[in-house]
Amino acid sequence: MKSEVLAVGRELLIGKTVNTNAHWIGRRLARMGTMLSRITTVDDNLQEISYALRESLKRKPDFLIVVGGLGPTPDDMTLQGIAKGLRRRLVIDSVALGMIRDHYAELGRGELRLTEARRKMAELPEGATPIINRLGTAPGVLLRVGRTLICTLPGVPREMKSIFRGSLEKEIRKRLGKLYVRTVILKLDGIFESALAPILKDTMKRYPGVYIKSHPKGVEEGVSKIEVNIVTVSKKEEESRMLAQSIASSLSREVANEGGTIQSVVESG
Amino acid sequence: MKSEVLAVGRELLIGKTVNTNAHWIGRRLARMGTMLSRITTVDDNLQEISYALRESLKRKPDFLIVVGGLGPTPDDMTLQGIAKGLRRRLVIDSVALGMIRDHYAELGRGELRLTEARRKMAELPEGATPIINRLGTAPGVLLRVGRTLICTLPGVPREMKSIFRGSLEKEIRKRLGKLYVRTVILKLDGIFESALAPILKDTMKRYPGVYIKSHPKGVEEGVSKIEVNIVTVSKKEEESRMLAQSIASSLSREVANEGGTIQSVVESG
Repeated sequence: MKSEVLAVGRELLIGKTVNTNAHWIGRRLARMGTMLSRITTVDDNLQEISYALRESLKRKPDFLIVVGGLGPTPDDMTLQGIAKGLRRRLVIDSVALGMIRDHYAELGRGELRLTEARRKMAELPEGATPIINRLGTAPGVLLRVGRTLICTLPGVPREMKSIFRGSLEKEIRKRLGKLYVRTVILKLDGIFESALAPILKDTMKRYPGVYIKSHPKGVEEGVSKIEVNIVTVSKKEEESRMLAQSIASSLSREVANEGGTIQSVVESG
Repeated sequence: MKSEVLAVGRELLIGKTVNTNAHWIGRRLARMGTMLSRITTVDDNLQEISYALRESLKRKPDFLIVVGGLGPTPDDMTLQGIAKGLRRRLVIDSVALGMIRDHYAELGRGELRLTEARRKMAELPEGATPIINRLGTAPGVLLRVGRTLICTLPGVPREMKSIFRGSLEKEIRKRLGKLYVRTVILKLDGIFESALAPILKDTMKRYPGVYIKSHPKGVEEGVSKIEVNIVTVSKKEEESRMLAQSIASSLSREVANEGGTIQSVVESG
């Protein structure tokens, strides 16, 4: 299964905002036993959005999660960009319009007028289904294009998370089935990354489906510190656990042979 | 001028690490008066790196900053991916090899042996120039391809920043000339984003080159809070300052007309 995030927003490109949304989605998918294959960030610009969308669809992901640019202001143009990219019309969706009307009604203060800016949030690419946004105004959107399910989410983190949890996650689980993920983190002392390299290379060759990666943590008081992450995924809980454990033991043994020590092992499942 | 970041590393896709490197580079460029047009994040995978590189070169950026995957371990394959993408050979660079040798010599402890893993960091795509990494082992690389200057930087933040400041920034400034950036942030109370929308739309039409963007900050005690950012760039300091100020005044006036209040104005230059 392949999933991508397309993040829209100049604030992400000019270093105003850190892309914690993509990070959160990435972690969420990893816990479900799958992973993002790509994150793309583009400007609030029709050409950029539509171009990036088309590039992504060429890579045929199962899920394309588009985040940001759904609001009422003129720089919010994600739906327009998607429509352009797909060469579809934008049409007022009556369900989406109802959601927006209800939202402003709840806010009270007689702010019921559906101005042009508010109606814009209900203009969806033809064929799209709105998803209710319980914590904000702009609805999310689901839209199937070939094998890809496009899902738009608002850029406000709590709204994004709420729609992801409430709707998209179900779709992903359906496609994925139940998977068990096991993570082991080894904290190593006194071995250089370059000495660890051939050990990892060999281990990766023996376990091709397993995620094994080293992160150098610098040198403290003359001692080189490295963290090694091992992540296994399986449809069987026991299998995932056993595999992670046996790789961890084998790596630890080889690190010890090279004069390194294992400072701690962190496991999570 | 157009610049892109290509970030390489699975840790960024599985929500282990937040992509603060791209954020830092984006902010740095914004302060210099230019901006990133795209950030792409891909996995530690030859196919993915080479494919993303080729896609980026098609968009003809002036600068393509590739971050991460330069180290000695087998999952570090950025240089290999670039070589593959450009259909160039990897060749041992004697200058790079010298840098790596010197680094391990400084670490002392007789760790002078240039193992296969260490030599790998000196295997550069044909035509590339190494840049010294004063805070770590893996050199950066500069490589011109058509109108694009490709620059690789290590993923370790302090090493990345040091090489960026020491080498790449000079190249960017040379291309860019001296520019003056002025930022005004307006903090607004009591106006809905949807009511602000037509005001912004109109202002953006009047000042097409200026960055104007609103960020909804939620509703506090029944009052809607919004931040508006105005960023101007000019070769003349005075021009940049005056323009930002006049847009801020005009926006403030119109917000007041709609019943909103300006809570505070933050300026930086």
